[in-house]
Order: sequence, then C-alpha cells, then structure tokens
Amino acid sequence: MPRYALKIEYDGAPFAGWQRQADQPSVQGAVEAALAKLERDVPSIAAAGRTDAGVHALGQVAHCDMAKAWDPFRLSEALNHHLKPAPVAILQAVAVSDEFHARFSALERQYMFRLVSRRAPVTHDRGKVWQVQHPLALEPMQRAAHYLLGRHDFTTFRASICQAASPVKSLDELRIEAIDIPHGREFRFHVRARSFLHNQVRSFVGTLERVGAGAWAPEDVKAALDARDRTACGPVCPPQGLYLAAVRYPVAPFTP
Amino acid sequence: MPRYALKIEYDGAPFAGWQRQADQPSVQGAVEAALAKLERDVPSIAAAGRTDAGVHALGQVAHCDMAKAWDPFRLSEALNHHLKPAPVAILQAVAVSDEFHARFSALERQYMFRLVSRRAPVTHDRGKVWQVQHPLALEPMQRAAHYLLGRHDFTTFRASICQAASPVKSLDELRIEAIDIPHGREFRFHVRARSFLHNQVRSFVGTLERVGAGAWAPEDVKAALDARDRTACGPVCPPQGLYLAAVRYPVAPFTP
Repeated sequence: MPRYALKIEYDGAPFAGWQRQADQPSVQGAVEAALAKLERDVPSIAAAGRTDAGVHALGQVAHCDMAKAWDPFRLSEALNHHLKPAPVAILQAVAVSDEFHARFSALERQYMFRLVSRRAPVTHDRGKVWQVQHPLALEPMQRAAHYLLGRHDFTTFRASICQAASPVKSLDELRIEAIDIPHGREFRFHVRARSFLHNQVRSFVGTLERVGAGAWAPEDVKAALDARDRTACGPVCPPQGLYLAAVRYPVAPFTP
Repeated sequence: MPRYALKIEYDGAPFAGWQRQADQPSVQGAVEAALAKLERDVPSIAAAGRTDAGVHALGQVAHCDMAKAWDPFRLSEALNHHLKPAPVAILQAVAVSDEFHARFSALERQYMFRLVSRRAPVTHDRGKVWQVQHPLALEPMQRAAHYLLGRHDFTTFRASICQAASPVKSLDELRIEAIDIPHGREFRFHVRARSFLHNQVRSFVGTLERVGAGAWAPEDVKAALDARDRTACGPVCPPQGLYLAAVRYPVAPFTP
C-alpha cells in the first residue's frame, strides 16, 4: 500500500489530545475521519508524538497507508477540505517508503513552550500561552535548565501514568529564549530529545518557572533531579503553552 | 475630575466594534461596564480609534474621568478584574491632565494588517489574520503602495458610510513587511496617518492584495486613486487581520 507522511499543525484546545478516544474529539480521530472520506477502510494512523489534551502542534508527523496511489499535494488538499472546520491543517503530504514509520523512525522530537509574564491578562494569545502575572528572572532559569541537560533518570519529571519502559532519557537541548513584549516578557523554552516521558516538558517548565519567580534556587532543581522522586517535582504547568514543534528523521521527509 | 488615559488591547472577534451599541456587545460597553463597578455615574469614555466589528487592538487609547483620585496601577488592576472573561485588557492606566483627549489630542494612528498566503488553512492564527491560498508578490505590492503615500483625495478608498468631513488625508506610511512562515508567507502592512477614512486600511489592503496576486498592475492602483470613485476600489478585505497598533500624542502618556 502506498504510504504517505503527513506534517500536521493543530490548535489543541478543542481536543482531548492526539490519540483517538471512544467518546471525545481527538486530532487522530479528526484526521482519520477525513481519510475515511477519501477511501474505505484506511488503516489507523500512527504519529510521532501523542500530545495530551490542549497541547498544540506546529509540526506533528503521522503516516497513513492508502489503497491507491495519491498525488501528495492532492491528498493534502483533500484532507484539508474534509478537516474543516476543525483547527487541524495538513501542511504537507509526501510519499514515503514502507520503512518509514512516523513514530519509530523518529530520531528526535522538538517541543516549544510559551510562558508569558505580564500583569494584564493576555487577549490575542489566550489559549496559546501559559500566563503568570509576576516577573521571572531569565538567568536563574537558564542555570537550573543546565542541570537537566544530558542523560539522566528523570523519574522526578515523569507523570505517574507514564508508560515508558525506562525513566532514563537524554535531554539534548533546553534553551530559554526571552522576548520583550509590550508591558511584559515572553519566555520560549526550546526542548529537544530523542523521546520524552509523559508530562516531562510541562514538569520541566513548571519547575523552572518556580526558579524564575525566586521560589526555588537553581540548585534545588538539581536536588529534585537527583531525588528521582515524583514528589520532588515542581508544579506541572498547564498544557496550553506547549507545542510539538518538529520531528527529525534520518532522511527529512518534508520541504521546509 | 481626575482623568486617566487607558492603553487597551483587545481581540475584536466577539464585539460589534469599539462603539457602544444598544443591543450588541462592544469594547466601549465592556470597559464602561467595568468602570461602573468602580464608581457610580462614570461619564462615557472616548477612544482614539472607533474600530469596526472584528477589528483588534494592540494599543487602543481611551480616557475616562473618575470622581475620586485612583492610583493608576490599582485602576488598571480593578478594570482588568471586572473585564474578565472578555478578551479586553488594560495594559496601562496613567493620570493625565484635563487637556488630554484620547481622540482629539491624537497626532497619529498606526494600524497593522496581517495577510497570510498559505495553501493549508491557518489554525493557530484563525481569526487573527486574513488568509489567501495563492502566492503574493511583494515587489509589485510595494510599488503600488508607493502611489498611495502622501496627501490625496482618498474617495476611492472610503466607505460610503464614512462620516469624515473631507476625503483628503495624508498617508505617512504604508510599509509592507514579508515574513517567511512554514509552508507560506505572511505580509504585514504597517500604515500610519493622522487620521483615516472609514474602511481606508481594509480598502488599501484588499486592493494591494489584487496587485500581489497579479490581477492588478501597480499602475492600476494609481488610476484607481486618481479616479476618486468608490467603484474603482478593489475588494475591501475582511476585518480579522486588522489591528489598531498604536496612537501617538504630543506627549507620550504611556511607558513602552
């Protein structure tokens, strides 16, 4: 069966997450419903990151197997037509070999988290960022983030429902970008790893926010990591600031 | 009565525009309702730009007269509290003299228009941009925009319901910024003038989009301007890409 990789952008707000659920709207369910308008009996699709409820994507990747050969551009156009009015868009479809698997071929996932520090409530970015109303200091957050880089047992930053076989992961990047915005400041956390534990990024950001606010010292984050104890984690931050930004493969399937 | 200038940000989507209306939600109505929670009989407020239905603001300016003297920060906090959950935020309140008038003291209004050219439907920016699905050429739009700069009779670019005394206005800036976005391009129109005619910016952008699409030559925009005829205008574009960005006064009331 011809296989296609799909680069997918979505607003996570109306969805219970990527994964198909019996009684709640999901992104996977929306894409599979659109595929079902094109062909009968399209097999279930697989994605690189099973994003949680409310989490967004700029570049989720999934693959689908079709009965007939589709022109990739026509496939993306047809899917976007049937996806309306859901806030899900196929940015690109490309033909890939049978060896390509959106989840198992992925070498790296890149997430971005948007945290806004501003006194006045956000209006245009409502549902797109996590807002706090107090100031945050960049430098202590950066020092704390440094402790998390590399290969560690991340039990502290792992949801109790996490199904990963091991809590040991390698964190390749946790870079914090500060952007001045009118009457406030936005902090963008850029996070890269081969794979992540459940709630790992939100556990990181929620803990680092405590450092930025001055409630935790940067060294407290190292102690929390070393404790390998979920109860040592800071508060897990809300999902609406989190974006699955990109997925890297041995051969890049998509044009930029 | 102590007078305060308010810098206001809003998402225009749920409103019938700035101006208070008897039977529809308006931004003015929302702010006045919040003021009414603070003091009895607060006089009606005036704003620099009476934005239309669906038009947003990054920096609308209004002024209000209060019975008692308020600490400006406390005033903004109290208003933001009572504005919830409307997508309207007081970014800053400052005490101003009785001579300050948000509308009549304004020297210049700055608008920004976001036009996205991308094949796949927008998701995160839905309701925040005007999207077209065809490519747009920047250089012809820039050449056409140049014809509009300066002092002209803008009858062509003026809504028939416009109440301005004269169609002659001076356009001080119409700069088009092109930003590469994944799988598409965003064009930001930065427009500055002392004052604008009704629908002037949306008439400009709708006409320039035709030039970018290749349907009009840049010189056709000069001919349309010279015609001083509303029917010579290109299509007026939709409101959701338009932002009242800033208002300039002889003495800047707000901190950046």
